[in-house]
Amino acid sequence: MASGARSRGREEYGLEFSRIVAFSDGVFAIAITLLVLQLDVPLHAGSGHELATALRGDGDDLLAFGISFAVIGRFWWRHHAFYGEVVRFDARLVAFNFTYLAFVVLIPFTSDLLGRYGDQSVAVAIYAIDVALVILVSVGMVEYALRAGLTREGMEDEIRRGRNGALYAAAVFLASIPIAFVAPSQTPLFWLLLVLDPTDRRGRHRAPS
Amino acid sequence: MASGARSRGREEYGLEFSRIVAFSDGVFAIAITLLVLQLDVPLHAGSGHELATALRGDGDDLLAFGISFAVIGRFWWRHHAFYGEVVRFDARLVAFNFTYLAFVVLIPFTSDLLGRYGDQSVAVAIYAIDVALVILVSVGMVEYALRAGLTREGMEDEIRRGRNGALYAAAVFLASIPIAFVAPSQTPLFWLLLVLDPTDRRGRHRAPS
Amino acid sequence: MASGARSRGREEYGLEFSRIVAFSDGVFAIAITLLVLQLDVPLHAGSGHELATALRGDGDDLLAFGISFAVIGRFWWRHHAFYGEVVRFDARLVAFNFTYLAFVVLIPFTSDLLGRYGDQSVAVAIYAIDVALVILVSVGMVEYALRAGLTREGMEDEIRRGRNGALYAAAVFLASIPIAFVAPSQTPLFWLLLVLDPTDRRGRHRAPS
Amino acid sequence: MASGARSRGREEYGLEFSRIVAFSDGVFAIAITLLVLQLDVPLHAGSGHELATALRGDGDDLLAFGISFAVIGRFWWRHHAFYGEVVRFDARLVAFNFTYLAFVVLIPFTSDLLGRYGDQSVAVAIYAIDVALVILVSVGMVEYALRAGLTREGMEDEIRRGRNGALYAAAVFLASIPIAFVAPSQTPLFWLLLVLDPTDRRGRHRAPS
Repeated sequence: MASGARSRGREEYGLEFSRIVAFSDGVFAIAITLLVLQLDVPLHAGSGHELATALRGDGDDLLAFGISFAVIGRFWWRHHAFYGEVVRFDARLVAFNFTYLAFVVLIPFTSDLLGRYGDQSVAVAIYAIDVALVILVSVGMVEYALRAGLTREGMEDEIRRGRNGALYAAAVFLASIPIAFVAPSQTPLFWLLLVLDPTDRRGRHRAPS
Repeated sequence: MASGARSRGREEYGLEFSRIVAFSDGVFAIAITLLVLQLDVPLHAGSGHELATALRGDGDDLLAFGISFAVIGRFWWRHHAFYGEVVRFDARLVAFNFTYLAFVVLIPFTSDLLGRYGDQSVAVAIYAIDVALVILVSVGMVEYALRAGLTREGMEDEIRRGRNGALYAAAVFLASIPIAFVAPSQTPLFWLLLVLDPTDRRGRHRAPS
Repeated sequence: MASGARSRGREEYGLEFSRIVAFSDGVFAIAITLLVLQLDVPLHAGSGHELATALRGDGDDLLAFGISFAVIGRFWWRHHAFYGEVVRFDARLVAFNFTYLAFVVLIPFTSDLLGRYGDQSVAVAIYAIDVALVILVSVGMVEYALRAGLTREGMEDEIRRGRNGALYAAAVFLASIPIAFVAPSQTPLFWLLLVLDPTDRRGRHRAPS
Repeated sequence: MASGARSRGREEYGLEFSRIVAFSDGVFAIAITLLVLQLDVPLHAGSGHELATALRGDGDDLLAFGISFAVIGRFWWRHHAFYGEVVRFDARLVAFNFTYLAFVVLIPFTSDLLGRYGDQSVAVAIYAIDVALVILVSVGMVEYALRAGLTREGMEDEIRRGRNGALYAAAVFLASIPIAFVAPSQTPLFWLLLVLDPTDRRGRHRAPS
C-alpha cells in the first residue's frame, strides 16, 4: 500500500475525491446525451411521403446512437466500478482520467461519423480506433493505480481480472479495424464478440472499459 | 426481501448507489435543457415584419417544447419517486435504467420532429412511440425490481399502484398512434387524457413514468 | 408551520430534497453553458480581413451572451438563496420549480434572438418577456411556499423582502417592453435600472430571481 | 481570519458552499464536453476518398480540441485545488467565480475559431486573450479571497505560490498575442512554455488557472 507523499486518501479528502468522480460522471452524462444530436430532423420535407423517406435515412444514425449509448454506458459502469476501489488519488491519476475522458468526449463525433458513413471504411475505422483508445488508456490508468498503491488493499486480483476483460475488449476493436477496410457495414456485427468476454465472471472490479 | 448475492444494498454502497441516481439526474437535466435547441432563430430576417413572420412559425416548436418539458419533467419525478424506494441494485437494474435513459435521450430529437412536422402523421406517431417506450421500459424495470426484492419492504402495493398508473399512460400514448394517422394535429389534445389517470391517488410511489 | 400531509421535510427526505435542488442546478449549469452556442464561428472567411469583419458582427452576440450570463447567474444565486430557506417540499412546489426552469431553459434561445436581432423590437420584447416570466413564476413559487408553510420558521419577513426585490425586477423588464418598440437597441441600457433595486439590503433571502 | 459579517463559513453552510462548487463543476464538465461540437462531420462525401480528404481538414480542429481539453481540464484542477482551501464565501467571491466561468464558457467558441482559422492571426489572438482573461480573473479571485480572509488559515503562502504560477501562465498567453500576428500557426508551440513554469513545485494550492 505504498503511496507517495503526494497522493491523497479518500478519507481525508473525501470532498475533493468525490469532485473528481462527480466531474467524470458529468462528462459521461453530457457525452451520452449529446449522442442525440447526431439524429437529424429532415428539413423541408413537403409531404408525409417525403418525411418518411428522409427519416428512413436516419436508421443508420439510430443504430450508431444505440451502439454508442451502450458503449458509453458500459464505460461509465466500468469507470464507476474501478473508482469504487480507488482509495487514494494523485496528479497522475487525474491526468490519466482526463486523457480517458477526452477520448470518451470524442464519441459523439465519431458516432455521428459512423451513423452517416457506416458504409465507408474510414468512418468505421475511426470509430473503432476511438473506442480502442478509451479502453487502452483505461488499462494504463488501472496499471498505474495498482503500481502506485492507490487501490483498496486486497482487491488487486479482482482489479487485474477486470483489466484482462478490458484488454479483450480492446483486442476486439483493434481487430475490427482491418475488417472495416474489407466489410465496413458488417463490422458492427464483429463487435458482438464483446459479449463472449472470456474473462467475464462477476462483471465488476475491472478496468473501466 | 430475497435479493441475489450480486445485488448491493444502499447502506453499504451509498456512494455507488447515489452515483447511479446522480448520473440519471444528469441525463434528465441535459435532455430537458437540450429541448431548447429545437427552437430555431430565423436567419437573415431583413425587417421586423419578416422576423415576426418567421417567429410565428416557431409557435409549433414552442408547443412541442412545452409538451416535452412536461413529459421529461414528469418522467424525472416518477424516476425520483421510484428510486426513493429502491434499496438495492444489481447489474440488471442498471441495464434497465440505461435502456430507459436511452429513450429519454431521444426525446429532444422526437420533440423537434413533432414541433416541425406536427401536421404529419409519421412525426406525431414517432413521438408517441418514443414516449410509450420510455414508459414500457419503466414498467419492466419496476416489475424486475419488485421480483428481485430490490425495493423497500412494505412498499410493494404502493409501487404496484404506481406501475398501474404508468400502464394507463402507456395505453394513452399507444392508443394515440392510430389517431395520429387520422388527425395528427389534434393528437396532442388526446394526450390530455393523461390528466384523468384513474389510478392516481397520491401521486407518488409509482412507476417512473 | 402548517404543512399538508403530503409535504415532505428536508430532514427525513434529505436525499430526495437534494436531488430536486441538484437537478435545478444541473439545468442552470447547462443553460448558462449553452449560451456559448449563440456565438457563430464565421464560415468560409478567406482572409484575415474577411474574418475580422465577420467577427465584428459577433459583437452584439457577445453583449447578449454577457447579459444572459449575468441574468442566469443571478437567477441561480436567488434560487439558491431561496431554496436554502425551504425545509419542506410538495408536488406543487416541484411543479412551480419546473415551470420556472422551463422559462430559464428558453433563455439561450431568446438570448440568441437578442444577439442577432438586437435592433428589432420584437426580438428585444421576446427576451424581456421571457425574463419577466421567469421572475413572475418565481414570485408565485415564493408566495406558495410561504403560504404552505414550506419555509424555515422565522425567515418569512426576510423572504418577503426578497420577493419584493423580484417584483421590482419584473417591473423593470415589463416596463422595457414598450420601450423595445420605440428604441430596441437602447433597451438593454434601461435594464441597468436593476442595479438601483430599492428593496436590496442584504442581497440574500429573496425570491429566486 | 477577519471575514465580514456577510461571509459564510463552509461548516455552517456546507450545503450552499457545495452547491457553488458543484455548479462550477457542472459548467466545467459541460464546457469541456461541448468542445466536441467543433469537430464537423463532413456532409455529402460521396466516396471514401472524398470522406478521407474532408476529414483531413479536421486535423486542425482535433489539435484545437486537444489543446482546449487540456486547458479546461487544467483550469478545473486549479479551481478544485483553490476551492479546497476556501473555507468561507461571500457575494463578491461568487461574482468573481461567475466572471471566471463566463470566460471558461467562451472557450468552446474560441477553440472552434482556433481550429478553423489556426492560420489567421486574429483567431489565434482571440483564443489567447480568452485564456489569459480566465487566468487574470482567477488571480483577482485569489487575491480577493486572501484579503477577505476566506481561505484556510496557514495556507496563505501556498496559495500565493499558486497565484504566481497563474501569473506566469497569463504572461505566456499575453506574450503570445503579438506572436500570433507574426506566425499564427506556430503560436501553439509557444504555449508549450507553460510546461517550464518556474513557480511549479507541488502542483497544488495555486490560483485556479
